[in-house]
Amino acid sequence: MTKKSKASNIQQIIARKKELSKGIDPSDISKGILTGDKQALSKAITLLESRKKTHIDSGQEILQQLLPYTGKSIRIGITGVPGVGKSTFIESFGNHLISLGHKVAVLAIDPSSEKSGGSILGDKTRMESLSVNENAFIRPTSSSGSLGGVSRKTHETMLLCEAAGFDVILIETVGVGQSETAVHQMTDFFLLLMLAGAGDELQGIKRGIMEMADALVITKADGDNKTKAKSAASAYKMAMHLFPPSLSGWVSKTAICSSIENSGIHEIWDIVEEYVKTTTSNNYFSSNRTNQREYWLREAFKSQLLQSYFDDPAWQKRFDDCLEDVKNGLLTPHAAADKLISFT
Amino acid sequence: MTKKSKASNIQQIIARKKELSKGIDPSDISKGILTGDKQALSKAITLLESRKKTHIDSGQEILQQLLPYTGKSIRIGITGVPGVGKSTFIESFGNHLISLGHKVAVLAIDPSSEKSGGSILGDKTRMESLSVNENAFIRPTSSSGSLGGVSRKTHETMLLCEAAGFDVILIETVGVGQSETAVHQMTDFFLLLMLAGAGDELQGIKRGIMEMADALVITKADGDNKTKAKSAASAYKMAMHLFPPSLSGWVSKTAICSSIENSGIHEIWDIVEEYVKTTTSNNYFSSNRTNQREYWLREAFKSQLLQSYFDDPAWQKRFDDCLEDVKNGLLTPHAAADKLISFT
Repeated sequence: MTKKSKASNIQQIIARKKELSKGIDPSDISKGILTGDKQALSKAITLLESRKKTHIDSGQEILQQLLPYTGKSIRIGITGVPGVGKSTFIESFGNHLISLGHKVAVLAIDPSSEKSGGSILGDKTRMESLSVNENAFIRPTSSSGSLGGVSRKTHETMLLCEAAGFDVILIETVGVGQSETAVHQMTDFFLLLMLAGAGDELQGIKRGIMEMADALVITKADGDNKTKAKSAASAYKMAMHLFPPSLSGWVSKTAICSSIENSGIHEIWDIVEEYVKTTTSNNYFSSNRTNQREYWLREAFKSQLLQSYFDDPAWQKRFDDCLEDVKNGLLTPHAAADKLISFT
Repeated sequence: MTKKSKASNIQQIIARKKELSKGIDPSDISKGILTGDKQALSKAITLLESRKKTHIDSGQEILQQLLPYTGKSIRIGITGVPGVGKSTFIESFGNHLISLGHKVAVLAIDPSSEKSGGSILGDKTRMESLSVNENAFIRPTSSSGSLGGVSRKTHETMLLCEAAGFDVILIETVGVGQSETAVHQMTDFFLLLMLAGAGDELQGIKRGIMEMADALVITKADGDNKTKAKSAASAYKMAMHLFPPSLSGWVSKTAICSSIENSGIHEIWDIVEEYVKTTTSNNYFSSNRTNQREYWLREAFKSQLLQSYFDDPAWQKRFDDCLEDVKNGLLTPHAAADKLISFT
């Protein structure tokens, strides 16, 4: 991020906070969102991201009011290591979708982005043409928090965007952290971006992600790189053919694209549309969404319940002591868990 | 399972229960296990599997006494769909290991075996020559329980087997359920058995399992099937080459074998030995075990904590009501989780 954009980001944050200290009328904001007002949308998201209880409560009230208007979008998860060209891809892809008449929201989920060094939606300037388009909405990732907290914010932001009329939601993640399962569980379609030449750049991608992908796209397929990209794509195609088919009945596709030459982009949207058609007709699309809702209920409850214990320093100390004993082979993990449970 | 073997299984269970009602001296049993006494080993496992608190306590006492003598084995997870030939493979593989001077314990983890129709160590008669070998110990899966409970029993049984001097532990799972992650988290090496012809039989294998495998072995590579097996193995080899390397620094291997012709079996053990050598020298072997212990502590605590809630019918009802609201889109999953947490 440049110093200038950092400063402008900070100014935005200050401006938002000022805005929030004025009176908040959830119903007003909800109405605004339903008319597609991006300022109202931003305000609601900021409320949900706030640490102040009154803000969160207002945010939840808005969300609850808008719930009947959510769900009518295609939710796409996009992952790939830093350097694969996610931002430029999202810009090309987003602009293509808008040219077809869609309204596109771009979100990010990546609590570990600082650690992994991935610049993930850090500033909007990386998507210049998309960010100024009135049919696009780009929301940088909230900077910190646990994976559970960040997942929740992204999930809720997505619902608000849907209520505001965005009918394609792109959720970006860097593919090296813990967040891919989260993205996979809140999207309909999972897109993995890769570079040609299955060498070092693979080091970054976590195992298990390839088998999650509904489509694997080789980026930067331009100039001298095109032949390499094509052969990489066909190698992956063969490999993915050996994967067990997913529950959706969908066979993962491979493709190549160039954001610079703007080639291959519309084919990827064709793949998504084919996926939606296939999974709508076999009913997977909606059953998957229902399962996802159940997944998030269980996950959220689990993580909040655990958090309520770990928030207590005395309890955290107990846990650490048990962990030490387990690591040193003085207690079995299960005996240590029994001991911890006896304290609860 | 034949009627005869079922009857004999029942007789065994009755005999064990009778045995247990006699006086139990944990120290005696521990001493017996340390001398390699298989009867003492069986007794301790049965204690741990019992539902009676006094039995479990005695079992835990034995385990605690033996803890310093555990860990000195190579732990191998073996998975594959029903029909892939797991039992015959394990028999050939186990006999080969014994011929090299090893002592082999075979366990199974599969809480869902009844549902999936996989016959998993259901009776020892499927491994006739191995089961009568004095250097082998085969323990059928405990019939029922939650995944958490079954994982715990398998994990603890493994430790007892190690104390009894078994230096290779094979843990079998059917590869279609929830238990592969559990097996992966309690073993050093993960072996995936597959049939040639990447077609229908893949339907059974869950996604994500291929990327867990340290070796993928095509079984039944005999007679007319040999050529097909070879070409399947090389296709998988190419595919797995495209996978991101695992944290162990190990590149997954592929091989073929025939349990009938007894070919390819020793090559698989060579692969395991190479793996152990590689991961010992880069320190992954021991750091992985430490991480696994931490994983089980967290998992066991988490699942026991949740269980303590779900055991209460009133609470289960509350959860079901929330789930219903979430499924019907009346509440967001996170708002529902908040509601549940407010009850705790």
